Amino acid sequence: MSLVATGPYLDRLSTRLRIAATSFCLGIDPDPAGLPPGWRADLSGIEAFARLVLESAGRHAAAVKVNLAFFESWGSEGVAMLERLRRDVPVDLPFIADAKRGDISSTSERHAAWLFDRLGADAVTVSPYTGEEGIAPLLDRADRFVYVLCRTSNPGAGELQDLLVVANDADEVQAAEEPAPLYVHVARRVAAWDAGRGTCGLVVGATAPQQVAEVRAAAPGLPFLVPGAGRQGGDLDAVRSLGPTSSGPAAGLPGGGLLVNVSRAIAEAAAGSKDPGASLEEAARLWAARLRV
Amino acid sequence: MSLVATGPYLDRLSTRLRIAATSFCLGIDPDPAGLPPGWRADLSGIEAFARLVLESAGRHAAAVKVNLAFFESWGSEGVAMLERLRRDVPVDLPFIADAKRGDISSTSERHAAWLFDRLGADAVTVSPYTGEEGIAPLLDRADRFVYVLCRTSNPGAGELQDLLVVANDADEVQAAEEPAPLYVHVARRVAAWDAGRGTCGLVVGATAPQQVAEVRAAAPGLPFLVPGAGRQGGDLDAVRSLGPTSSGPAAGLPGGGLLVNVSRAIAEAAAGSKDPGASLEEAARLWAARLRV
Repeated sequence: MSLVATGPYLDRLSTRLRIAATSFCLGIDPDPAGLPPGWRADLSGIEAFARLVLESAGRHAAAVKVNLAFFESWGSEGVAMLERLRRDVPVDLPFIADAKRGDISSTSERHAAWLFDRLGADAVTVSPYTGEEGIAPLLDRADRFVYVLCRTSNPGAGELQDLLVVANDADEVQAAEEPAPLYVHVARRVAAWDAGRGTCGLVVGATAPQQVAEVRAAAPGLPFLVPGAGRQGGDLDAVRSLGPTSSGPAAGLPGGGLLVNVSRAIAEAAAGSKDPGASLEEAARLWAARLRV
Repeated sequence: MSLVATGPYLDRLSTRLRIAATSFCLGIDPDPAGLPPGWRADLSGIEAFARLVLESAGRHAAAVKVNLAFFESWGSEGVAMLERLRRDVPVDLPFIADAKRGDISSTSERHAAWLFDRLGADAVTVSPYTGEEGIAPLLDRADRFVYVLCRTSNPGAGELQDLLVVANDADEVQAAEEPAPLYVHVARRVAAWDAGRGTCGLVVGATAPQQVAEVRAAAPGLPFLVPGAGRQGGDLDAVRSLGPTSSGPAAGLPGGGLLVNVSRAIAEAAAGSKDPGASLEEAARLWAARLRV
């Protein structure tokens, strides 16, 4: 599709990172409860605000990430709004569909058809639960990219993700390894899925700086998408020092291919402002500066 | 919304199970490559075929499950098609949205707004990866239901799900447990999430009969949604003997609250037929009989 540039995602991300010189990823999660005072909390108000965020703040960002749930909650009309918004994203600004899909392969083919081919996402987020074979149709696209959930930013993330993996009964080499948390195991597996192709990265929450370090050690070459740095209270310094890739192609990218997503902390800048657009741009400029590379 | 009956999902499922007297769940995954010869492989053809499947086969089913990816792959127009199809599902036929969502809680609230409130799903499927806290907005609805991915039906399901894990926290009771496969641990956790509320079940693939038995032992009272029984080659006898609940409220339901999903094997019945509607109904009737309770 003409929406999406050709060639490897990491090349496109690299170009944008050099221009923007920041790890700041603009998150667009249009929440009707988060509109500036006086805006209509209906679909047209939501769409106007999402577009204002994109136009005001996007110029300062290394990438833009939309959380699909905030559009899907309006049903088909919300998905149509997302399709329109995506057409307004400049082709040189990588567009990440935060969809957190993950299924058996015949269904993952439909996810690829929707997210990559129809919506025109450069990258998507997925859950690792069904394994590589289940999400292969998303991983096998040389010109797109998949950020796999590894350690999420929510308070209860550890319930499953911190479980200690003591053995993999089908794999004696791994059975001999030291026990590792599930999220470390996922990081190792995703590095194997990528196998140097440059189509896989990890989602690692800024709310868990110790885990950021552990995941980076387990997957030195995988780019990270880091949520939770703004209103969720993540540790920005830890993420900036521990997050960048230390080997592989992305190690040559500014900031080591790291993207730090900020959504609500940008949108909220418009709340009390007489000029919401200017306030959004100023908030984005400040976040881009905090995340300068 | 008026689309959805009130009261606990398991009560509605129970009523339907008594009428239909089968564990057969009709899957509607409209695949453009799977249309009968001569049908137009565009959106209108897909919609007409999905409606024909519903109207011909639905009368024999205990529930209907739609795989959202097959609608989303057409973008907003496909989601609008899904919204129209849902309105044609009789209110006494439980409607399961196979969405496999799972995120942090502020996003899960938007999933609930879309799937439960706008689309009118009686039940949804979710991934367990973010833990109970992340998907609480979906679990906390007394009149709806969540089937949590436990052991999926794809060939590579075991890559993560078969890992042997132990607890890695201050919970001494769990720390004393024997290592168990991740899917068994998930089954135990989901039973704890449900805590007798009757809002949680598990997705357990028919392609893994030994795992069905293990999961049932770990969660005696949770209803199962079982994919993979048709074209994926699952072991139907094993599922029927091992799958039904053995304790809890659903143990009193016909078939122990088990739902066995069949999608492609129904749709394909229309392929060479001069009367696709009659062939779909006959296929559904046969599957309902095979899964008689």
